[in-house]
Amino acid sequence: MTGESFADACQSVRPVDSEAASAAAEYQDRLTKPRGSLGRVEEIGIRLCAIAGVCPPPVPDPVTVAVFAGDHGVVAEGVTPWPQEVTAQMVANFCAGGAAINVLAHHGGADVVVVDVGVASPIPTDSEALVRRNVARGTRNLAVEPAMTTEEAGAALDVGVDVARQAIAVGARMLVTGDMGIGNTTSAAALIAACSGRPAAAVTGRGTGIDDAMLARKTSIIEQALARIGPQPTPLLLLSEVGGLEIAALCGFIVGGAEGRVPVIVDGVIAAAATLLAARFAPRVVDYLVAGHRSSEPGSSVVLEELGLIPVLDLGMRLGEGSGAALAIPTVQAAAKILREMATFDSAGVSDKAGPPS
Amino acid sequence: MTGESFADACQSVRPVDSEAASAAAEYQDRLTKPRGSLGRVEEIGIRLCAIAGVCPPPVPDPVTVAVFAGDHGVVAEGVTPWPQEVTAQMVANFCAGGAAINVLAHHGGADVVVVDVGVASPIPTDSEALVRRNVARGTRNLAVEPAMTTEEAGAALDVGVDVARQAIAVGARMLVTGDMGIGNTTSAAALIAACSGRPAAAVTGRGTGIDDAMLARKTSIIEQALARIGPQPTPLLLLSEVGGLEIAALCGFIVGGAEGRVPVIVDGVIAAAATLLAARFAPRVVDYLVAGHRSSEPGSSVVLEELGLIPVLDLGMRLGEGSGAALAIPTVQAAAKILREMATFDSAGVSDKAGPPS
Repeated sequence: MTGESFADACQSVRPVDSEAASAAAEYQDRLTKPRGSLGRVEEIGIRLCAIAGVCPPPVPDPVTVAVFAGDHGVVAEGVTPWPQEVTAQMVANFCAGGAAINVLAHHGGADVVVVDVGVASPIPTDSEALVRRNVARGTRNLAVEPAMTTEEAGAALDVGVDVARQAIAVGARMLVTGDMGIGNTTSAAALIAACSGRPAAAVTGRGTGIDDAMLARKTSIIEQALARIGPQPTPLLLLSEVGGLEIAALCGFIVGGAEGRVPVIVDGVIAAAATLLAARFAPRVVDYLVAGHRSSEPGSSVVLEELGLIPVLDLGMRLGEGSGAALAIPTVQAAAKILREMATFDSAGVSDKAGPPS
Repeated sequence: MTGESFADACQSVRPVDSEAASAAAEYQDRLTKPRGSLGRVEEIGIRLCAIAGVCPPPVPDPVTVAVFAGDHGVVAEGVTPWPQEVTAQMVANFCAGGAAINVLAHHGGADVVVVDVGVASPIPTDSEALVRRNVARGTRNLAVEPAMTTEEAGAALDVGVDVARQAIAVGARMLVTGDMGIGNTTSAAALIAACSGRPAAAVTGRGTGIDDAMLARKTSIIEQALARIGPQPTPLLLLSEVGGLEIAALCGFIVGGAEGRVPVIVDGVIAAAATLLAARFAPRVVDYLVAGHRSSEPGSSVVLEELGLIPVLDLGMRLGEGSGAALAIPTVQAAAKILREMATFDSAGVSDKAGPPS
C-alpha cells in the first residue's frame, strides 16, 4: 500500500531526550567562555544532544544531501519564466557535479544523492548519483485539478522515507534537504498558506525571479486552488491537491531522518513547506530539525516563525537545491565540537566570573 | 622608530581590482543558477576576486587566526565582573588548545597564533603557538589618564603588521582577527563612539555579562574619557588615549593583511573598533575585509553600518577570540569555490531563463 513506509515512520518518531538537553545546557556553562556567549551555536549544540540522547553529542558526520526533483503541471499557467525542461537538465547537472549544491555539499564534506521522484522527462544519465524513483511524470495543474492522487502523494512520501532510511543505513549521521522543480515555489506557497492560515499574498514570492504581473498571476492561482479545498483538509489531502512530488518526498525524508534519530538541516522555502506538512503528520519531527537558512522567499520566514526555528544563515539566498542548508553544515558540526573539545573552567584553571576556580 | 612598519604598511595598501570584480559579477550570471540567487555568497565571491585581482579567485586557504591579548587598566573602575588574571589564563588556554577559538579555528581548517602584546602578567607556557611581543604589561586606566603613550601604541600597531606579514610569508592566504583582554569592550566602545560620533550609551554593551549598574558605570567612564580628548583627534592620539594594546595590534594586523592583498575576516566588537581605526589610517583596507558576524554588542552593528559591511553570520555571539569570524571561514571559502567549480549554462547545456542555451 502506498504511504505505508511513511505511516510507519511517522509512528516511529520518538521524543528527543530532554535530560540530555538539560545536561548539555548545564555543561555549556562550565566551558571556558562567558555563559551564553556562543549564542545560537550553544542552542544548536543542546539540540544535537537532545537528538542523540547523549552529552557531548557525536559530531554529525557523514552527511547526506538528498535533492528531490519533480515537475509541476502549474507551469502551464505561466508562473515562471523558466522552461520546464530545466528540471531535467538540472538533474543531469547535479549528477555531473556542476551545480551549486554539488560545490557546497562537497565543501561541507557531504555526499549528494539525486532523486527523480517526479521529473516530466527521462533523465539521460547513467550516473550512480541518480536514484530513479519516478512516481509520475510531473504533477497535474493545481490551478484546475488536484496535483496528485492521494496514492501518488503516498508513493512520493514513501520515496522520501526510503531515501532517508537508506542514507542512514549506509552511515549518514545528518541529513540535508534539497529540491529541484521548475514551478515548485507556487506549490510551496500554496501549502504554506493553507497550513499557516496566512493569505496567499503574504507567502508568495518571486521564486527564481519573476515580474509584478507574473507574481500577481501566481498569487491569484494559489488563491483559486485553495478555494477549491474545503476547510481544514487532512495533510494528505492538502498535499495531493496543491503539493508536489518532490515536496511529498521531502516530507517523507524529514520524517525518515527523525525516525532514525539524526538531525535534519532543512533548506529554504520548498523544504519549509515540506516541514510544515511533516509537522502535521508527526509533530515530534520539529525537534530533529535545524533550519539551515532564511530564504528571501516570504513563505520561508512564515514557516520558521510557525515552527519556532531560528535559521543558521541569513544570506539573501533563494536558490533551493539544498544550497542554504549545505552551507550551514559546518556551523552545525562546530556546535557539536564545542561541547566535545572545549576545556572547562576547572580543567583549564581559568577563573570563573564568580571567583577563582575551585 | 615605533610605528614605522605600520606607517609603511598603510602606504602599501593598493586599491582592489575593480575589473576583476566586474568580471566576477558578469561570470556569476553565467553559472547554472538564477541570477543573484546565492545572495551574499555571490557578493563575497566578487569581493574575493577584487582582492585577488583575478576571476575566479583562489580559494583563500591556508587561513591564520591571530588572537592578540592585552590587559586594560580600566578594570580598576569595576567595568567587568571578571578578574584581570583571566586574560593570562585564557592565553594559556589558547596555547593548550582548549578555548572556543581553538575548536572553531581547527574546525575551519585554520591555524591559531596567540600574541601577547599587552598581557599584565607573564604567560607560564612554552607553547610554540605563543608569540611574545609584549609592549607593556597592560594599559593604564583610561578613565583617568591616557591608556598608552603614542610610542606604545605605535609599537603595538607594528606588532600587528609583523604578525600579518609573517603569517602571509609562511603561506596564509586569509587572515582572521581574534582578541582577548578583560575590560576590552570598554576600550572598544570608547573608540567606536569617538570614531562614529555616536553617544557612548548607543555603543556600549554588556560585554561578557554585566548588570545595569555596571553598564551605567561603564558608559559614564567612557563619556568621561572622551570628554578629555579634544575634538577630531588623530587616530593615533585616539588610540593611545582610550585604546588597548591588542586593539592597536589588531589594527596593524588588518592593515598588514590588506597590504599583503589577502582577505581579512574581522570578528566582533573589538575587531570592529580596530577596523574603524584602520579605515582612518588607510581607507582602502575596507575593501579587503569580510565581516565574520554581527556581535550582540551594540557597537558591532554601528561599525558594520559605518563601513557598509554585511556580516556573514548573525548568531547572537559575543565571545570574542575570533570565534564568530572563524565560524565564517567555510562560507567565505565556499564563495570562491562557487566561482571556481560551478558549471555555466553553456557548459552544462541548461536552458537559461531567456531561452535555450546558445
